[in-house]
Amino acid sequence: MIILGVDPGLTRCGVGVIEAGAHRRLSFIHVDVVRSSPDVSQDLRLLAIYNGLVEKIETYAPDTVSIERVFAQSNRNTVLGTAQAAGLAMLAAAQRNIPVALHTPTEAKLAITGNGHAQKIQIERMVTRILNLNTMPTPADAADALALAICHALRPAGALQGGEREEHLTPAQRQWAEASKKATKRRFNADRGM
Amino acid sequence: MIILGVDPGLTRCGVGVIEAGAHRRLSFIHVDVVRSSPDVSQDLRLLAIYNGLVEKIETYAPDTVSIERVFAQSNRNTVLGTAQAAGLAMLAAAQRNIPVALHTPTEAKLAITGNGHAQKIQIERMVTRILNLNTMPTPADAADALALAICHALRPAGALQGGEREEHLTPAQRQWAEASKKATKRRFNADRGM
Repeated sequence: MIILGVDPGLTRCGVGVIEAGAHRRLSFIHVDVVRSSPDVSQDLRLLAIYNGLVEKIETYAPDTVSIERVFAQSNRNTVLGTAQAAGLAMLAAAQRNIPVALHTPTEAKLAITGNGHAQKIQIERMVTRILNLNTMPTPADAADALALAICHALRPAGALQGGEREEHLTPAQRQWAEASKKATKRRFNADRGM
Repeated sequence: MIILGVDPGLTRCGVGVIEAGAHRRLSFIHVDVVRSSPDVSQDLRLLAIYNGLVEKIETYAPDTVSIERVFAQSNRNTVLGTAQAAGLAMLAAAQRNIPVALHTPTEAKLAITGNGHAQKIQIERMVTRILNLNTMPTPADAADALALAICHALRPAGALQGGEREEHLTPAQRQWAEASKKATKRRFNADRGM
């Protein structure tokens, strides 16, 4: 199963692609950043990000696109551009009938390091280790996109759907499952306002 | 010149189309609401809104798409969906090389009623009068989309570009120009954070 992770942004939009095989074996396929110039108008920036994402999705033909869930509480200066970039990634996937999964940064951190408040460098190191890379993925900030893809591959819900039972979860996975449940509740409440 | 106004939203996205002729003569062409069901996933909702907007843009072939500018300070529950819907409208226009104009709600209210804090009913009445309609446009909340199209047609900057001089502005237009300048400053500061 090919998973394409998206760390959304209007200036820099991280894209990371992995393959999830049997026995939770994960392999690195691709990592990159899709950019738009801050010097052009917002509509042209969104078009550049959309075209870049479409190219990645068509090149790597993922089975799932895993996108960071954006919250209104995030950095006010960038949250709207981030939400719009996430929206374009959802659109590009939906246009191709590719399922979309949304994961919070906390879920991704927990899935990868066992700590929902992990630092950036810890995530980069764990992504490097999990994917058996010789060096840290570059560009460095695209590690978050790989983290979102890995998070989706390792999600407890998926493991349970696959026939595993809850007692087989590691403590980190159990913690992750709880964070995920909380996020689902918050999401439900937010959606009701929409 | 055909102007298509968009009042962005994830559940209801208003679309209003007018023609702006010589001597600021404005004619009504179309008003409607593009919807998405709250019962499907966010990616499918965005796809429905995008497809609906594309259909309107291809049907009415506007020279400009005038979209409400979304601010991070807006209602927290809906601001992200609103920003995403606005992003899709910008994308659909940019894909067709149609210029995009962003106008704040205050600019639209000022342009139409001369009062930046006008009530919804005042805007609906003025839209009805300006476009010489026999009855108020339905659905009622799509009047905002017509207001955004009218706002773009009546913008002082456009009038000035058209060869008019600043002293020819009405007091309402002058007030509008000042609100617009303020919004441009705020936009500049917000963009620097992106």
